Amino acid sequence: MIETVRWKGGQVRWIDQRLLPGRLQFIESSDLEELAQAIETLAVRGAPAIGIAAAFGIALAAHRAALAGRPMTLALTEADARLRRTRPTAVNLFWALDRMARVGSAAASASGAAASASGAAAESYSGSASGSDIAPVDLAARLLQEAELILQEDLETSRRIGEFGLALLKDGARVLTHCNAGGLATGGLGTALAPVYAAQAAGQRVEVFADETRPLLQGARLTAWEMATASIPVTILCDSAAPGLLHTGRIDIVIVGADRVARNGDTANKVGTFGAALAAKSAGVPFYVAAPLSTFDPQIASGRDIPIEERGGDEVTTTTASGAPPGVQVYNPAFDVTPAALISGWITERGIIQPPFTGEPDA
Amino acid sequence: MIETVRWKGGQVRWIDQRLLPGRLQFIESSDLEELAQAIETLAVRGAPAIGIAAAFGIALAAHRAALAGRPMTLALTEADARLRRTRPTAVNLFWALDRMARVGSAAASASGAAASASGAAAESYSGSASGSDIAPVDLAARLLQEAELILQEDLETSRRIGEFGLALLKDGARVLTHCNAGGLATGGLGTALAPVYAAQAAGQRVEVFADETRPLLQGARLTAWEMATASIPVTILCDSAAPGLLHTGRIDIVIVGADRVARNGDTANKVGTFGAALAAKSAGVPFYVAAPLSTFDPQIASGRDIPIEERGGDEVTTTTASGAPPGVQVYNPAFDVTPAALISGWITERGIIQPPFTGEPDA
Repeated sequence: MIETVRWKGGQVRWIDQRLLPGRLQFIESSDLEELAQAIETLAVRGAPAIGIAAAFGIALAAHRAALAGRPMTLALTEADARLRRTRPTAVNLFWALDRMARVGSAAASASGAAASASGAAAESYSGSASGSDIAPVDLAARLLQEAELILQEDLETSRRIGEFGLALLKDGARVLTHCNAGGLATGGLGTALAPVYAAQAAGQRVEVFADETRPLLQGARLTAWEMATASIPVTILCDSAAPGLLHTGRIDIVIVGADRVARNGDTANKVGTFGAALAAKSAGVPFYVAAPLSTFDPQIASGRDIPIEERGGDEVTTTTASGAPPGVQVYNPAFDVTPAALISGWITERGIIQPPFTGEPDA
Repeated sequence: MIETVRWKGGQVRWIDQRLLPGRLQFIESSDLEELAQAIETLAVRGAPAIGIAAAFGIALAAHRAALAGRPMTLALTEADARLRRTRPTAVNLFWALDRMARVGSAAASASGAAASASGAAAESYSGSASGSDIAPVDLAARLLQEAELILQEDLETSRRIGEFGLALLKDGARVLTHCNAGGLATGGLGTALAPVYAAQAAGQRVEVFADETRPLLQGARLTAWEMATASIPVTILCDSAAPGLLHTGRIDIVIVGADRVARNGDTANKVGTFGAALAAKSAGVPFYVAAPLSTFDPQIASGRDIPIEERGGDEVTTTTASGAPPGVQVYNPAFDVTPAALISGWITERGIIQPPFTGEPDA
């Protein structure tokens, strides 16, 4: 198991994933702003991991306020607002913050009256102001307990996703995945990669093909590192090579994670997932999403209503070395073949033409 | 016009495209091996440009043999064999070498008897041995003349492709393209980008979206450089962002080049083209291939028979800075949305489920 985000000695400890696979560096911090920036810069990423990190962030804010004697409501409201601003797409962030707010509000209320189910932060923590029956240190302890519970539930969820997903994998299954929905994206066991780990644990042979996942190369860096670390065979490929690979018959199943699932099943995930799904459909390869129920957002009717984060252009223009782990296999075809049925016409020096092309090539 | 490959003072001169957009470096060489390696390493790339470079390579070999008094048949046969080994997919290479061999064979035959139409090199140049009626220097001159003709025909072909393609572009058209099928991929005017240049020349507004084209980033480096140089607005994006972009309605047409078109219209082009075509189809955006007739291979029934080059893994694992031209616009969404219809199932801690997802997210 990978200890992606943990509480340790009054601080939040996380792996700076930007440094992988070159270096496994743990950051320990009691600075909420540092944690928020770690989420924004993708040092901590993956929808479930972001949720866990945010929950520990609230616990951290409560502990710091209790120690410093600062007003608890203000500290929690500020922390909640700051964390909500980090990333807009993954719903787990808001799910975890809402859950922490409900717990905080309920604990603070002397009567333990009905907690607000609203996601509005200022409202959620307002209960902490009126209810002074709980000592700040006790409220902080309660919030930490809830964050730890979110982590433990995540690990159990991953274990169960792995079990359910394992039923889809035959012995020797070749699994294509996009981005990293492994241990690094969760509390430590993963979503899309959980069935792969489960297959290995069950003694089945399993092989992973990892889209490199531009622009930040989470597949080439993180999924390849996780698989290599677990001694599971892994081959990386450019995202654009996936459609051709799927049509070679060398892939049995595609499994990806998710950042938000709408009520109708439309699923937001790392850019490139849509293209992989189109290609899997056209190749007749099953395409599964693996995600905890906290990723499902029944408030959202369809994908059109999911906010999509646009990030800075420098992520694309200043590509650094991909730094795949040494010795990782690579599938690198220079070309692919587009079936004629997908092409509207061929623009040539003789005009726009249609097949069959039986003439002499230079006639 | 870009002088991609030219004959200059008894040498072949080409642009080392690996250095673009940072540096516009012309290489002048009378060493056939250097030219062959330039094709292999993609210093010279693009199906029509490879054909032109190969034709000048044959002319170069003939000139060197004539100067050195080496046996002409041997020199041409060796040069032909070396150039055929450079890259397997683009048919223009073989088309140009076959054409040069026919011309060489016909010129060398004293009687001017029927030239071999065979693509077999040793056979094609065997006429040069028996026929000693033509002086080596004259044969070399005839071959150079043919190579120059291939270049001139390419420029005229690009001009006509531009005209025919222009009819597909409304004023303000937003064109998505993959890889570089511009001036750098041809004698100087391009195939997929020829209609874009034609639109500009006709005073129409036109805008290009360029897939960056992993692993070697021909889109971010070369297409962006060409468009910026021509003052045509250009936005680069990761290949994996194209499906989402196509579904936003911000693209009017996709135009790509081709390396080989089979008789049934299946089209080999830079890896990633297939995925863009699937996405264009699903978004209802027209998808056109722009290519000279020399790219069409009636010998090949369908895409299954087109040889696909697999290149070294280090192209993927050791990504260098993309070096897009300064100030180029970037479209960089972090996520996309996969329609539910493309997803086989959602693997959760409660099992594999299907929409609608109306329950409480954490219920």
